[in-house]
Amino acid sequence: MAEYGELIEKAKLAKDASYKLGLVDTVTKNKAIEAMASALLEASGEILEANRRDVELARSEGASPAFIDRLSLNEKRIASMAEGLRDVAKLPDPVGEVIASWTRPNGLRIEKVRVPLGVIAIIYEARPNVTSDAVGLTLKSGNSVILKGGSSALNSNAAIVKILDKAARESGIPAGAINFIESTERESVYQLLKLREYIDVVIPRGGAGLINMVVENSTVPVIETGTGNCHVYVDASADVDMAREIIVNAKTQRPAVCNAAETLLVHEDIAARFLPEAGEALSARGVELRACPRAMKYLPGAKAATEDDWGTEFLDLILAVKVVSSLDEAIDHIQRYGTRHSEAIVTRDERNAREFLDRVDAAAVYVNASTRFTDGGEFGFGAEIGISTQKLHARGPMGLPELTSIKYKVYGNGQVRG
Amino acid sequence: MAEYGELIEKAKLAKDASYKLGLVDTVTKNKAIEAMASALLEASGEILEANRRDVELARSEGASPAFIDRLSLNEKRIASMAEGLRDVAKLPDPVGEVIASWTRPNGLRIEKVRVPLGVIAIIYEARPNVTSDAVGLTLKSGNSVILKGGSSALNSNAAIVKILDKAARESGIPAGAINFIESTERESVYQLLKLREYIDVVIPRGGAGLINMVVENSTVPVIETGTGNCHVYVDASADVDMAREIIVNAKTQRPAVCNAAETLLVHEDIAARFLPEAGEALSARGVELRACPRAMKYLPGAKAATEDDWGTEFLDLILAVKVVSSLDEAIDHIQRYGTRHSEAIVTRDERNAREFLDRVDAAAVYVNASTRFTDGGEFGFGAEIGISTQKLHARGPMGLPELTSIKYKVYGNGQVRG
Repeated sequence: MAEYGELIEKAKLAKDASYKLGLVDTVTKNKAIEAMASALLEASGEILEANRRDVELARSEGASPAFIDRLSLNEKRIASMAEGLRDVAKLPDPVGEVIASWTRPNGLRIEKVRVPLGVIAIIYEARPNVTSDAVGLTLKSGNSVILKGGSSALNSNAAIVKILDKAARESGIPAGAINFIESTERESVYQLLKLREYIDVVIPRGGAGLINMVVENSTVPVIETGTGNCHVYVDASADVDMAREIIVNAKTQRPAVCNAAETLLVHEDIAARFLPEAGEALSARGVELRACPRAMKYLPGAKAATEDDWGTEFLDLILAVKVVSSLDEAIDHIQRYGTRHSEAIVTRDERNAREFLDRVDAAAVYVNASTRFTDGGEFGFGAEIGISTQKLHARGPMGLPELTSIKYKVYGNGQVRG
Repeated sequence: MAEYGELIEKAKLAKDASYKLGLVDTVTKNKAIEAMASALLEASGEILEANRRDVELARSEGASPAFIDRLSLNEKRIASMAEGLRDVAKLPDPVGEVIASWTRPNGLRIEKVRVPLGVIAIIYEARPNVTSDAVGLTLKSGNSVILKGGSSALNSNAAIVKILDKAARESGIPAGAINFIESTERESVYQLLKLREYIDVVIPRGGAGLINMVVENSTVPVIETGTGNCHVYVDASADVDMAREIIVNAKTQRPAVCNAAETLLVHEDIAARFLPEAGEALSARGVELRACPRAMKYLPGAKAATEDDWGTEFLDLILAVKVVSSLDEAIDHIQRYGTRHSEAIVTRDERNAREFLDRVDAAAVYVNASTRFTDGGEFGFGAEIGISTQKLHARGPMGLPELTSIKYKVYGNGQVRG
């Protein structure tokens, strides 16, 4: 309970700091972010030393090479974190933007103004670069942040936050704006998720397990991010070369991320022409194919798909393949198994394209392009804190404006309601 | 559990219907809403008969006259419900609006388009007019609705929904779009709040008890509405006549609503000049004053305020009064006790006005006007489903656009990510 008291204290300080931070001008915030970037580079030795301890511990516990890779920092990765911060400093400040203003017949002038959300809690897993990204984006949008990273990156994250917080405070950012929860107890997350009085939103970043745990236990509003069981549907009229390029890219360009494709749906009229060639191209890149009985005919090397395969986000070089009899069947399959993240159709039929765009319920719906473009950078937002798969508040890549709320400022000269 | 099964069935049907409803054109929706309005008027006898049973039961259970008044319908109130629906038919349809569109250097064209949220659950208390408002607004914004009204209005609500649903279906609205939970078991609300797979958002409308229950128990995203512990701060430089008019209006024009003022804060430099006169005007309108020791001096008839009074939403002809030494103290008091709803300053000092507008954390912040204007109609939104006091998704009066989400439609010609 002593720990819970400490958590509440931190959340209170974060809330108090958020009121001050919300009023800090853009120039000061940008200077602070630049200073944070420089501090990361200057203190890289300290960060690498802390990271070495995390990596050693993970190795001794038998972590997989992929896990160790995500956890590991080096000079280049630290430089890229610093560069990420500098990019954020260059982005326009959303705070104070007058989104709309109008005057009512009674003379009241109403302004709808962007304001920070207040205090944002971010709960994330292994990658330590999320720490500096999150601090940069929340600070630029005028929000206090409470970070709770995975226990395997504890030393790295603690070192990074210490350095960022010091640089920020020396640049005029109020103390209490940047917070890190050192406790590795699961209990501390549950406690955090109940501090609705002090925390305005919690953003979980990680696998489905983490996200579900947060949604199930939080009384603080949540923005769900991330899980993507994405589909590419190759329509009867598709350009087969284009379709092959798109599915190869969507599956293999970076298989471990949420906007990678997990299932290929193919119209029956094009299956014989498209699948053998596409299957070869995918196999040549090491993709394991799991096919429905009809697709099996054209994919000699494939395994038989199970019901589970349609609902699985493989995050790996595995692709489920299904032949469908119609656009309707493709859309129904996506609605049933998809996670509302990114869905693509390859077609030359404008009516089918429009129908797919209108009917598929997802954050991003593509015609003749790879699902891999669902990304703050690729959309031109400059940076992102995650990709929302829910419909409330923000959907798709979340940039700086998605980290704000609004306030109505109303100017009168004595108006009362009649 | 049979009941739980029925609830899930309804939620599934609502979800299925939402996919169809999201594609229904504006003309069809408007005709349906007009038909709903006519049906209410034609079937007013049926509604009044159902309402009579609710009112009799409430009377036999010893409900207060104010409660009976909120529960009671008559021809005039039914006419006003029908008129409310016709107003919604006239509002612009938010669905399909292209909020932004741009083309990326790689040629991808991105459109950010408004889409319905999907399925909206609304949990509300006694007033049956909320039923028709909610059905009209959710239908116009392309959303399926699941209504759970208070048990005291069960017969009235069931009759209204039956009539509205029939008129809607006969006008081409998909079956399953309008749903009403007849169960009066508290358990059915808990179950509803866990149906995250089918329900996209839940909006509680009612007192703090209902809202807290929903927030504590829901895994479905919630939009908090309503509770308003609102303040009017009379600054040292205020025009005392204007200040008196504003506090009298904010307190007495309709004391039982969320945007009514509950506490008056007065700068010490103006207290002697302002409070005696304001106190008299308020007392003359039957307002009970509960004053801090310093305010007491100028308010001979007042009771002593307790600590509890600062945090209470009286919703009645009761006003807490406190003298403060500075603008800072006023803002601190509001941050401590306010509910982030509506806050007003009366001042002739532009710097203080700006500081109050910038620093006070609330959905609507006023200079020289009554807090009573925080309302969809008064803001010019045409209608509202409630007033959000949270920062996520929607803040302040929620009109039709606040009942939508967005989707990115992305048009390519073979783009893959490099």
